[in-house]
Amino acid sequence: MTAREDVPPLKRVAVLGAGSWGTTFAKVLADAGTPVTLWARRAEVAEAVHREHRNPEYLPDVTLPIDLAATADADEALDGAEAVVLALPAQRLRENLERWRGHLPDGVTLVSLAKGVERGTLLRMSEVIREVTGAEAGRVAVVSGPNLAGEIAAEQPTATVVACPDHERAVAVQHACSTGYFKPYTNPDVIGCELGGACKNVIALACGTAAGLGYGDNTAASLITRGLAEISRLAVALGAEPLTLAGLAGMGDLVATCSSPLSRNRRFGEALGRGMSVAEAEEANHGQVAEGVKSCDAIGELARRHGVDAPIVDAVRRVCAGEVSAKEVGEELINRELKVE
Amino acid sequence: MTAREDVPPLKRVAVLGAGSWGTTFAKVLADAGTPVTLWARRAEVAEAVHREHRNPEYLPDVTLPIDLAATADADEALDGAEAVVLALPAQRLRENLERWRGHLPDGVTLVSLAKGVERGTLLRMSEVIREVTGAEAGRVAVVSGPNLAGEIAAEQPTATVVACPDHERAVAVQHACSTGYFKPYTNPDVIGCELGGACKNVIALACGTAAGLGYGDNTAASLITRGLAEISRLAVALGAEPLTLAGLAGMGDLVATCSSPLSRNRRFGEALGRGMSVAEAEEANHGQVAEGVKSCDAIGELARRHGVDAPIVDAVRRVCAGEVSAKEVGEELINRELKVE
Repeated sequence: MTAREDVPPLKRVAVLGAGSWGTTFAKVLADAGTPVTLWARRAEVAEAVHREHRNPEYLPDVTLPIDLAATADADEALDGAEAVVLALPAQRLRENLERWRGHLPDGVTLVSLAKGVERGTLLRMSEVIREVTGAEAGRVAVVSGPNLAGEIAAEQPTATVVACPDHERAVAVQHACSTGYFKPYTNPDVIGCELGGACKNVIALACGTAAGLGYGDNTAASLITRGLAEISRLAVALGAEPLTLAGLAGMGDLVATCSSPLSRNRRFGEALGRGMSVAEAEEANHGQVAEGVKSCDAIGELARRHGVDAPIVDAVRRVCAGEVSAKEVGEELINRELKVE
Repeated sequence: MTAREDVPPLKRVAVLGAGSWGTTFAKVLADAGTPVTLWARRAEVAEAVHREHRNPEYLPDVTLPIDLAATADADEALDGAEAVVLALPAQRLRENLERWRGHLPDGVTLVSLAKGVERGTLLRMSEVIREVTGAEAGRVAVVSGPNLAGEIAAEQPTATVVACPDHERAVAVQHACSTGYFKPYTNPDVIGCELGGACKNVIALACGTAAGLGYGDNTAASLITRGLAEISRLAVALGAEPLTLAGLAGMGDLVATCSSPLSRNRRFGEALGRGMSVAEAEEANHGQVAEGVKSCDAIGELARRHGVDAPIVDAVRRVCAGEVSAKEVGEELINRELKVE
């Protein structure tokens, strides 16, 4: 959708979370001319961004804009913000939001960068945000697309989707983050964008696992194709528009994540495919567990409750739970998935 | 679709063309237990396959089945064949078929492995086959999917689609080439399979060109996503089923070809992206011109005649014709395509 010129620009944006995607998105906002303050949990990270224009932990090679402010004080970041970007791991969004909810400016737009489904509650990230803050649906936006953070930080041309049922808010966020290298498009379909973003992590785990087991590009392409069909079935059953899944926030994000060596979920899957347990793969990945490992049982449970057949998600869930080996499930899945067309 | 057990097996199959895909498909048939004779244009290739069980030119590292017969005499290959597999470059199918048409066994099933649209006539390969041989539609089948020949020759698990309006013939071909590593599924939609296979070469050229220009995986994923939308629009306008394009012969083939370093069209595009002309890229690729270079103007012309917007195909066509540089069209296309969602 084309931008509406009559939407006033956002005067100030807070980005909460200074991991690689939060830091990169803060850079994009600053490059777009939007006043932005980045909140980091640790004071030394905020200090490095503020004084040295670097995030030594997550984006060591990138020089950040000099007008990108950073702080470890959330109140300072939130002061005067018209939009708050939540750049937190999916499973930690709730606990952080609960701490901040009394401090959010009235009527602020809440923008989710998190991709996942909450364990236990099976809620999408926008639903968690609404439940904790009491915000109506129109105040919550989601940013999702083929968005490998490292490439965006290097100013590689990238497209994304800003999803929000309130079109004016979507356009305000779109304007706030439009640069020469980052092109956001608006879409009212929050459900489709969020499920595309959450489920692709699980399919990327499956693709990584297949690569770790030694399977090639023909197998990967079949898994990605069947994976998109599986994601689309589930998303549509939950109320998404099929076209969203065929677009940048569905197929685009899936293809980028499944094919890039930069993808954490793909790399984690490769370790599983080479025979590591989740605990061993976690250790090999500097103590980080890929989001798909955390979301796969919630997504599998959503599929079961809605009567949707999701064999790839289920296979990943069983490997992550230690119920079967990657090798067993790889053979089973390939035999099964190669039969579906 | 599940196999029908009451279709009698093919007693003998001829594979005409001993390039990498023809040789690999002949190996698959032999591994499936189907009696098969491979025809090679050059006697020394036929001799090497027959005596040494190797194709030194196209698959030097693969040991071929000892029961794979080979000959440089087309009549010998065709003798007693119930199916003839045409494994020839798209733009040379007609001239070869014209030579053989008087020698084809009566009622034989004609199976096309060629991916492309004929220059000048704008005909799909099955249409060329029908025009030259006079065969009715039900006698012509098409094999297409995420099928990088080198991986199949290495017995990597691979799925494919056998498309034929005559379901019994499709099942006979399916049975003839089903092995533990190669899984064919039937589909009546010849138009969708052929256009998916022909158009993906052009999108792979675009992806290769983007890579050669230095663009990353976010851009590639956007091009693949928009490319599938473009292919689907064109194929549906020409009578294909949308689901075929969302399946293995559409999205699957596209993703495999665009992401694999083994893809000739992708490699050719990379050379164009690095600033070579088509002639220079041809020299760098051992005198071979990628099929997408040959098909892109025919596919662009099909799109124009059917009023279908095909900006990626058109961009590739202009680069190949030398009308614009890859760099100019890359920037233009990225700016345009990043706006479409």
